[in-house]
Amino acid sequence: MKNAVGREIPENIPGLNKIRPFEGAFAYQPTGRLVGPKIPVNVPRTEKTLKSIDQAIEATGLRDGMTISFHHHFRNGDYVMLMVIEAVARKGIKDLTIAPSSLSAVQDCLIPYIDRGVITAIETSGIREKLGDLVCSGKLSKPVIIRTHGGRARAIESGETHIDVAFIGAPACDTYGNINGVDGPSACGSLGYPMVDAAYADRVVAITDNLVPHPLYPISIPQSLVDFIVVVDKIGDPNGIATGSLRISNNPKEQVISRYAAEVIEYSGYFKDSFSLQLGSGGASLTAAKFIKEKMLKQKIAASFGVGGITGVMVEMHEQGLIKRLFDTQTFDTPSIRSLKENPCHVEVSASLYANPHSRGPIVNNVDFVILSATEVDVDFNVNVLTGSTGRLMGAPGGHPDTSAGSSVSIIVLPLIRGRRPMIQDRVYTVVTPGETVDVIVTDYGVSVNPKRKDLIDNLRNSSLPVMKIEELQRKAYQMTGIPTPPLPPSDEVVAVVEYRDGSIIDVIRKSK
Amino acid sequence: MKNAVGREIPENIPGLNKIRPFEGAFAYQPTGRLVGPKIPVNVPRTEKTLKSIDQAIEATGLRDGMTISFHHHFRNGDYVMLMVIEAVARKGIKDLTIAPSSLSAVQDCLIPYIDRGVITAIETSGIREKLGDLVCSGKLSKPVIIRTHGGRARAIESGETHIDVAFIGAPACDTYGNINGVDGPSACGSLGYPMVDAAYADRVVAITDNLVPHPLYPISIPQSLVDFIVVVDKIGDPNGIATGSLRISNNPKEQVISRYAAEVIEYSGYFKDSFSLQLGSGGASLTAAKFIKEKMLKQKIAASFGVGGITGVMVEMHEQGLIKRLFDTQTFDTPSIRSLKENPCHVEVSASLYANPHSRGPIVNNVDFVILSATEVDVDFNVNVLTGSTGRLMGAPGGHPDTSAGSSVSIIVLPLIRGRRPMIQDRVYTVVTPGETVDVIVTDYGVSVNPKRKDLIDNLRNSSLPVMKIEELQRKAYQMTGIPTPPLPPSDEVVAVVEYRDGSIIDVIRKSK
Repeated sequence: MKNAVGREIPENIPGLNKIRPFEGAFAYQPTGRLVGPKIPVNVPRTEKTLKSIDQAIEATGLRDGMTISFHHHFRNGDYVMLMVIEAVARKGIKDLTIAPSSLSAVQDCLIPYIDRGVITAIETSGIREKLGDLVCSGKLSKPVIIRTHGGRARAIESGETHIDVAFIGAPACDTYGNINGVDGPSACGSLGYPMVDAAYADRVVAITDNLVPHPLYPISIPQSLVDFIVVVDKIGDPNGIATGSLRISNNPKEQVISRYAAEVIEYSGYFKDSFSLQLGSGGASLTAAKFIKEKMLKQKIAASFGVGGITGVMVEMHEQGLIKRLFDTQTFDTPSIRSLKENPCHVEVSASLYANPHSRGPIVNNVDFVILSATEVDVDFNVNVLTGSTGRLMGAPGGHPDTSAGSSVSIIVLPLIRGRRPMIQDRVYTVVTPGETVDVIVTDYGVSVNPKRKDLIDNLRNSSLPVMKIEELQRKAYQMTGIPTPPLPPSDEVVAVVEYRDGSIIDVIRKSK
Repeated sequence: MKNAVGREIPENIPGLNKIRPFEGAFAYQPTGRLVGPKIPVNVPRTEKTLKSIDQAIEATGLRDGMTISFHHHFRNGDYVMLMVIEAVARKGIKDLTIAPSSLSAVQDCLIPYIDRGVITAIETSGIREKLGDLVCSGKLSKPVIIRTHGGRARAIESGETHIDVAFIGAPACDTYGNINGVDGPSACGSLGYPMVDAAYADRVVAITDNLVPHPLYPISIPQSLVDFIVVVDKIGDPNGIATGSLRISNNPKEQVISRYAAEVIEYSGYFKDSFSLQLGSGGASLTAAKFIKEKMLKQKIAASFGVGGITGVMVEMHEQGLIKRLFDTQTFDTPSIRSLKENPCHVEVSASLYANPHSRGPIVNNVDFVILSATEVDVDFNVNVLTGSTGRLMGAPGGHPDTSAGSSVSIIVLPLIRGRRPMIQDRVYTVVTPGETVDVIVTDYGVSVNPKRKDLIDNLRNSSLPVMKIEELQRKAYQMTGIPTPPLPPSDEVVAVVEYRDGSIIDVIRKSK
């Protein structure tokens, strides 16, 4: 059967319980109730600190077939996942599902444990490098489930993903289990992802290299959610967690794209005092901030809030009074980790508050503008941020579909051509963000507005932007690259499903031939 | 059948589903899972603000037989409960259970709605004045359920109390439903009680007299939990919410009791740097702070945290560096409302984090000393804070049983004699806090230590305190008052049950004759 973005979704996929094809960004009306963890109990003055991860695994009752979760706030500096999986393997436990908030290149170290059957299923946002290739080769017995940040929160809260044990890397943890991410040698900033895990997992283990006296301040995840504490030498490599400030790009192509994106915002009709903003962490998205800032100063307006992955660029605007509040699910660089600790109006939020569609209103629903990158787009405005043009797993939905659906004006920035390949396809290899939620595509050769946004088309007439139909933009690319040869068709076997934020299947990844 | 504090608990109580007698403070091992609310959904840019409470009642689908909740942070200044019940009555809805976090004297205004069958059941912490008398007279068809603050959070999270609609009086609310209690003309400080309601109710309505632009800062209850907003003229009377500072007592009896309580702390063996502390809001409890402070300054030590209902007395110690953190579920006076807004280490916490026994560790579990008042105690160290010696409903368990169970040293302060009545009974009229969790009873005529606390008995030998057996203390009282005549026995009909924090029945209130 074909879903609402025209993708063929098998009615049955071995290893998955139920398949609900994507029917439209807001079509699904959920029923039922949110779930809760096992009712816990704790007598006063219980000692929560255990001697080792091995001991914690015993204490939690972890056994074959269970699901364990992790967070990816340490990015490529993460030591926690490997430490836990090594300990699990030592105990002879097998057939685990891992449900991290995302996976980075560093997690290629997990491959031997997939080979040995310790890990047999994965639910994640991102998956890449050798681990991505392994998935595409059909190595796992169950399809990987790829989710957005909001979708992961939804899946956990609704019980679709049941976490038996959450292992939380804790940059600071006190002796009764209060945790934050802003203190200590492995500070990563916001703990927006594991906030959800801690609230819903049956057992919660904090793993820290920075045990401090009770009570910690500030508290991101409270003691009432943490069962056990393990102290280890190092939970992460600071160089992999965050180094310096994510920089504004000097790449001339990105300069053009950024200037166009800022002009889209200026003329959109939504650029007025107290507007709100999300910027991705890509170069063009960050660079756009420079131009937006100039326009804000000129018009003497300030933003009511900025949200998302927070970077030094947004922190600077906050500290200059140009963005009044920052809502932070993930902190991307050193200046923003410092800001989260110091600035009271830079507020940590959970992935659920940020982007969960099954909520009484996530923060993405209040965003006016979002600027997002893409690996490729298509003439239906569908966006791929997960696979390359030939199907290789190399990215993550992250908050892309969430914020694109929530925002008033969703702006996708990408170069018209990368290498020798055009970036506007007839069909993206994988649909991650549906075209109905994408408003403007900005390239270095021109700007296209989704035909359903007549208001934006009208408003942008007043700008000097090279606005054109998406087909025209595609033609421009083809003039330079020629018509690309279509990628080799994959096999029929599904190795991963791409869930839309509401839990429906928007696309599948098939085994590479 | 008799429970673990020797009270006769009927096996069946009409109107209640299951009766589980109290078996000991930590005897009950819960099973099962926490529950969740109906899965909500909200499309971007939904208008949450409705024109009236009547409209909100329609929007929530409230109907006969449902349960609605409120918070009591406005104390005797609350306008919200009456406004909602009036609107409910206008709609002809009947047979509601109200489940406020507590009831104050001002809620006598609800009596006509009980007479008319609009309200037919009550779950609360406190109940007093004419409403209390009404309950004792057997007017309600179901017994009132009286809970501790931690027990209420437990009941809601476990699904024992299912809230269909929570109505939350919001001193500040933004246009997408973010709420705090520290801003606006009806500022009350912490919103620790309705934080729990908002997370578990099927529908949540914010009622505010202070609608502000999105996004509010700080946020106590986030937009993701709030369905609807109603703006009214006034949600409360500031004079009833908090007036000035709760004062240290000059009453000579209370001075003696306070000095003794402070000396118990000093010699207990737990009085060292980084100790932790809860003080009740009663005069003797607050006055003890003065003496504790002197001892802290002398010994050059500071407390790691203070918790509970926060008062100006604790705020002053915090601002002087004597208490490093304040955890605040309920803010009692004007200086502490100001402090919650201004002091970053004065932190708002939910009633669940504060005191829920079915948690991986509420804050009460970390408390070293708590000083609590009582209406009467008995020779088994059981404490009554709910009824007078003749059974009249006049108080509330509040956090008393929670913090008494959690703390290392639980100190009960009360005068040996009130009026012409001795305050140490053979049996308290109603057991609210079981003697096994009470460590020291301090009166103006002497101090008694629970015999099971041999460590405290030993340590207090070094003090100059008049320590004596509880029977001896009782004898002293009788010498002055004579042996009191026992209260008239009530009828058999149960009009209220007193739940211990774990959901078991520790005592019942019977219909007055």
